[in-house]
Amino acid sequence: MPENDKQSLSMVTCTAPVNIAVIKYWGKRDEDLILPMNSSLSLTLHQDQLKTTTTVACSRNFQQDRIWLNGKEEDISNPRLQSCLQEIRRFSRKRQNTVDSTSDVSGVSHKVHICSVNNFPTAAGLASSASGYAFAIKILFGVESEQLSAVARQGSGSACRSLYGGFVQWKLGEQLDGKDSLAEQVESESYWPELRVLTLVVSAEQKSVGSTSGMHTSVETSQLLKYRADVVVPSRMEEMIRVIRERDFPAFGELTMKDSNQFHAICLDTYPPIFYLNNMSHRIISLVHRYNQYYGETRVAYTFDAGPNAVIYTLQDHLSEFVQVVRHFFPPEVSGEEFFKGLPVCSADLSEELKKDINMEPTPKGIRYIISTKAGPGPCVVKDPNHHLLGADGLPKKSVISD
Amino acid sequence: MPENDKQSLSMVTCTAPVNIAVIKYWGKRDEDLILPMNSSLSLTLHQDQLKTTTTVACSRNFQQDRIWLNGKEEDISNPRLQSCLQEIRRFSRKRQNTVDSTSDVSGVSHKVHICSVNNFPTAAGLASSASGYAFAIKILFGVESEQLSAVARQGSGSACRSLYGGFVQWKLGEQLDGKDSLAEQVESESYWPELRVLTLVVSAEQKSVGSTSGMHTSVETSQLLKYRADVVVPSRMEEMIRVIRERDFPAFGELTMKDSNQFHAICLDTYPPIFYLNNMSHRIISLVHRYNQYYGETRVAYTFDAGPNAVIYTLQDHLSEFVQVVRHFFPPEVSGEEFFKGLPVCSADLSEELKKDINMEPTPKGIRYIISTKAGPGPCVVKDPNHHLLGADGLPKKSVISD
Repeated sequence: MPENDKQSLSMVTCTAPVNIAVIKYWGKRDEDLILPMNSSLSLTLHQDQLKTTTTVACSRNFQQDRIWLNGKEEDISNPRLQSCLQEIRRFSRKRQNTVDSTSDVSGVSHKVHICSVNNFPTAAGLASSASGYAFAIKILFGVESEQLSAVARQGSGSACRSLYGGFVQWKLGEQLDGKDSLAEQVESESYWPELRVLTLVVSAEQKSVGSTSGMHTSVETSQLLKYRADVVVPSRMEEMIRVIRERDFPAFGELTMKDSNQFHAICLDTYPPIFYLNNMSHRIISLVHRYNQYYGETRVAYTFDAGPNAVIYTLQDHLSEFVQVVRHFFPPEVSGEEFFKGLPVCSADLSEELKKDINMEPTPKGIRYIISTKAGPGPCVVKDPNHHLLGADGLPKKSVISD
Repeated sequence: MPENDKQSLSMVTCTAPVNIAVIKYWGKRDEDLILPMNSSLSLTLHQDQLKTTTTVACSRNFQQDRIWLNGKEEDISNPRLQSCLQEIRRFSRKRQNTVDSTSDVSGVSHKVHICSVNNFPTAAGLASSASGYAFAIKILFGVESEQLSAVARQGSGSACRSLYGGFVQWKLGEQLDGKDSLAEQVESESYWPELRVLTLVVSAEQKSVGSTSGMHTSVETSQLLKYRADVVVPSRMEEMIRVIRERDFPAFGELTMKDSNQFHAICLDTYPPIFYLNNMSHRIISLVHRYNQYYGETRVAYTFDAGPNAVIYTLQDHLSEFVQVVRHFFPPEVSGEEFFKGLPVCSADLSEELKKDINMEPTPKGIRYIISTKAGPGPCVVKDPNHHLLGADGLPKKSVISD
């Protein structure tokens, strides 16, 4: 590659977190602009355990836009990806025309290469890559912060909530063009330091309906969805923000569980019905309620997205006992993959009384593994050029490519 | 027993059918009077396949009220049973005071013995005994027809729909005292002769929440229930009656499936959530939708009550093929109990194209057995005294008692 060509390559790498909603997003009022039917609220998880690293490069030498996800090249003609790129180019051009920017906007008309890898298994069912593209692209092309949500939304609606750390709401907005349908931090990741998060990855038997087509069908067919969006969620959003600010775990946990259940109720009210929860999910739900009932208070809460894996919220004080409860009622495979990943948890003894009171038949190997984490910050730029996923030739480095 | 004591024994035996709702009842507005939050509609099934036989006797020699269900004596202090008996005595006394009746009302103040047996296994999860008591007691004490619904309701709300054959609605009613919350025939059992019903009894792993306590919790906690009862069901009732009158199976089937799904959605929106459907139920639902999709029309419909067993509605023309489909995707245990019970079904060949298009992994032994039936008449009095379940001593005959 000649020297001047090399110089034409701009590259940015950033990391983005996963977020888990406690008030669920399900249903779009505008499918082109990706505008939701109701506001939603999530907690951004810590990137030490769960993150997506994304490198975006642009060069006038690139023949076409290309994308690699977790080591495999994907079809760039994916409409979601295309509208994400379009949105970026639109904003960048606008910026170029209106402000005397110091950032590198010369690449706007160039083709881009995107490369993205997760530090967690796909089986965990946690997606966040769209917030990664959006953030990397913002840095690269100088998209303004207010426009970031719109870019991320084009990749995946809920991804816009991964643009900030801690508790983040994605506001419904009122404008037709969606300019006010934005992600906004409610409280930072350090606001409630005792809060802990466990992802329980269960053994799924079959592939579920994707969330994009699932929510489309729900909007078309569920009579309960509109009532949820118009009447139930607005008051739940207010209550959720209040109980987070008060760090009231029992209220936070109960509302989280109720909203997860209502989201899955809407899926069932869809025609044909959508089932994301399986028997193992049902057992985890049952275990959580029995555990809480034993103590007479909500110490642990579950939430489920568009799949059978549970995400558990609890407080530091109850974490080790509950992990032990999970291990007791879902005994892991002895010689299998590592059962417990992420933030370490002290060991705890379970009282015979507790085990007896929960009164459930153990389900060996019902849970494949647990990832333990907590609240974390929003996307970060990776300064060290050694961490770029793309090489000087604009192609993924060898270490990134999967066989 | 002296001769005059024997003469004091009055006895009536009747049979009552099972009904399966297509618009579901879930939630009471008055728990004492057993008044529903919404109207419901069901089909009464034929007693040749599914019936409850009940003998009621009263005598001044009986020391106390006693009841035997399926061969075992049960606790008569059961509040449901008590209020059922109370209701009967109240109506009978009223009748005694106001009309010069020719029926035997002398027994009103006497104690009663009730004995009831089903001709189908308890595992089928189909209950109808309350309509049996109510009807037998009506005959015995001369309760007026308009009051029958109130008596049956006291035993089990949905039982009042078993008082008539064919399509029966249980009207919500408006009066506070529930006098207009009555069962009423929509069309008789001969109105839609092609209609067929299959009960698919699946292998249940655990006991579910009972429907009485389940619906109580739903009323207390589900925000979606009130919307369903107030807004969704009234228009569905109208539509259901219309499509039944038009014998429009695709519309009937689709609405039946949607209402079953919405009922289970409400159970999920309950806190703590109630799950009646298990993975096997989900698979049956999936099979029905894939089968219908193959033909591009709704030929088969499912509905689920408070348990995992499916009830399938279809037309005579599609019955044998669908039974074969079930047998293919849920291959029965070869040496197990009889797989197919009830009305005979012709054998049918499945095309490879259909099997391929449905594209599901077969689940051996997922369904224990099938009961095939159709619409049938309401309760009947059994004239032959040899069929009484109680002997001249007022105790169950030997053949009735289980070991």
